Amino acid sequence: MNLIRGLLKEERTKIVLWVLDGLGGVPHPEHGNRTELEAAHTPNFDRLAAESAVGLSIPVRPGITPGSGPAHLALFGYDPERVQIGRGVLEAYGIGLTLENGDVAARGNFATLDPEGRVADRRAGRISSEECVRLVQKLQEAIPSVEGVQVILKPGKEHRFVVIFRGEGLGDKLPDTDPQKEGLFPVEPRGGDFPSRFTARVVKAFLQRAREVLRDEPRANGILLRGFSSIPNVQPFPGRYRLHPLALASYPMYRGITRILGMDTPMDLQTFDDELRLLKQEYERYDFFYIHFKDPDKAGEDGDFEKKVERLEEADRRLPEILDLEPDVLVITGDHATPTLLKSHSWHPVPLLIHSRVSGRDRVSGFNEAECRRGSLGILRAVEIMPLILANAKRLKKFGA
Amino acid sequence: MNLIRGLLKEERTKIVLWVLDGLGGVPHPEHGNRTELEAAHTPNFDRLAAESAVGLSIPVRPGITPGSGPAHLALFGYDPERVQIGRGVLEAYGIGLTLENGDVAARGNFATLDPEGRVADRRAGRISSEECVRLVQKLQEAIPSVEGVQVILKPGKEHRFVVIFRGEGLGDKLPDTDPQKEGLFPVEPRGGDFPSRFTARVVKAFLQRAREVLRDEPRANGILLRGFSSIPNVQPFPGRYRLHPLALASYPMYRGITRILGMDTPMDLQTFDDELRLLKQEYERYDFFYIHFKDPDKAGEDGDFEKKVERLEEADRRLPEILDLEPDVLVITGDHATPTLLKSHSWHPVPLLIHSRVSGRDRVSGFNEAECRRGSLGILRAVEIMPLILANAKRLKKFGA
Repeated sequence: MNLIRGLLKEERTKIVLWVLDGLGGVPHPEHGNRTELEAAHTPNFDRLAAESAVGLSIPVRPGITPGSGPAHLALFGYDPERVQIGRGVLEAYGIGLTLENGDVAARGNFATLDPEGRVADRRAGRISSEECVRLVQKLQEAIPSVEGVQVILKPGKEHRFVVIFRGEGLGDKLPDTDPQKEGLFPVEPRGGDFPSRFTARVVKAFLQRAREVLRDEPRANGILLRGFSSIPNVQPFPGRYRLHPLALASYPMYRGITRILGMDTPMDLQTFDDELRLLKQEYERYDFFYIHFKDPDKAGEDGDFEKKVERLEEADRRLPEILDLEPDVLVITGDHATPTLLKSHSWHPVPLLIHSRVSGRDRVSGFNEAECRRGSLGILRAVEIMPLILANAKRLKKFGA
Repeated sequence: MNLIRGLLKEERTKIVLWVLDGLGGVPHPEHGNRTELEAAHTPNFDRLAAESAVGLSIPVRPGITPGSGPAHLALFGYDPERVQIGRGVLEAYGIGLTLENGDVAARGNFATLDPEGRVADRRAGRISSEECVRLVQKLQEAIPSVEGVQVILKPGKEHRFVVIFRGEGLGDKLPDTDPQKEGLFPVEPRGGDFPSRFTARVVKAFLQRAREVLRDEPRANGILLRGFSSIPNVQPFPGRYRLHPLALASYPMYRGITRILGMDTPMDLQTFDDELRLLKQEYERYDFFYIHFKDPDKAGEDGDFEKKVERLEEADRRLPEILDLEPDVLVITGDHATPTLLKSHSWHPVPLLIHSRVSGRDRVSGFNEAECRRGSLGILRAVEIMPLILANAKRLKKFGA
């Protein structure tokens, strides 16, 4: 990274990084031993791949299955083993909260506790989002602070919310209070170091107050907290790369990541259509565009091969809208593979395509795992993609005499 | 590197490393989407490639475009991000000067300054090399030392020369005095640390004296200095690999690198013919031969596709002369790509061929980017080539029991 910093130069080139979430797959024995991408009819991707440099991207390391956080950090050029963003922080930023240094955030679930205090339903019967708003408001009014520490609450979807503890001397070394299993008692908050022991006291007091406030709720009479975390010390993306980035994502988690990295992140996008519309609308104002397409990952997690194929074909149909903007560099890849065979994220390498006037063209016959394996980019780590993007955008000077 | 050191063993095998400068390319849309190497008729290279292990070499890292210095250091097995050689040192060694520890070298240009002292012509109208010799002699006689520091001058080609400052307590953290643009004043020397502030005082005094000496020169009435640098702490190549190396290069910069690494480096070679003649002549006396062929890089920088093709074909025609020597290991690669499409060095991976009795043979159909991509060496970093060379030369023992 120090190397890159010394080589950056200003250019007016425009970069589009299109992330197809869960893009990669493995050949599925029940589907002719093809991957979803091999089965999909993707004439636009295939044509572009033939005129691009292609390869395969390893999200973190061989064998490591990443969550969306590390996978995206790597794509943005941050070492995912060094920069780790806690779940609480991610959720907070995802729903529009901004943390101050020293804040501790956690993700909350409303839950149903039985009369002895054991967890009867970890999601309180998946109460509605409206119900969640009401409950969070009720809590916030009743508990503006505990132990001199400010409590900031914000509702998420259904049973989910975020809590931020703001005050002096808080630590974030706390295990989840969620026991992950019904029939068990919530885990007692216990701090792993001196400041976190203070946080534990604060959290305990907060949970006790919350139980009193929620006492008469038929379903949401308790709270479980997860992912206690403070804001990581991470270099903002714009200064790191001298880019003016716009992040287009319609799911909170991805917005959380890009907001933490200091990218301009509109919070009101609902669909991929919204993303593309804003891409066109704001194309002149920015020079780096991250676009997120969630659907392949969802279909992969569901183990729905045809659905994943169909969503990839939909992405292919939308490609011309991006090509029409004629970005100087267009990158298409995934944050990780989500093979329907596994019904989950996986460690498998992910197809990668970099197209620019100077990318070279590998003349492969399609955009899929097998063809990308033959490309000039080889099999590389996701964290190495940003320097390649900058090189293709002519934003890196020569290194050394 | 520590690993290699413990495994080295003596052998009588002979190694030839032939560097075709700027070898790599990218498919050129105006030339049938072929690279220069694909367009070239290279029957000898192609035949050899089929009987060799081939791959692609990344000079430094994906996306990083190297200068010749870092690119060659990597080929010789030195981490180019750790060993960095300043321009002044490189130029000094390139024209036959040898630095002592603590010396500070800089590259000089004669320049034309206007009456106010602004740079009117950064190259003094590209005065002749003979003129340069006269001017350097005049300066050297008038300024043998300043501030108790010895001044050593040596002319280069045309307007270029090298200056070495030799004395106690000098640092090399100084910006170039060359403003890079005409119409601007030369940059005042200012040291970035304590010893460099002393160097700045010395340089300032030297430049002042030089202006007086050159006052009556019609064109070369000023001096610009660049690349202040001291000799890096670099392990000599012969001891590092237990090899007795001969470096055959007809351009100063490459001779500078090999001299800094402690390779025997004849300084009087003018052409590639000279290099080949000396290779044959000295073949018995050495066991490692570096041969440099500059032409593809020059044609690439000029954006002259046909010329680069033609120079690659010329290299191909000369291959039998090297094969006739029957080296135990023959390596053919480039230090970096110089695609005519870019008219500059680039970051793209470079074809690599290693031929020995034990190299394996990848049975590819030719020596070019696309075929090398299919080879058993894969896509590797240039710094990893030296261990492969040593292995093929049977100069590395087994690691571990």
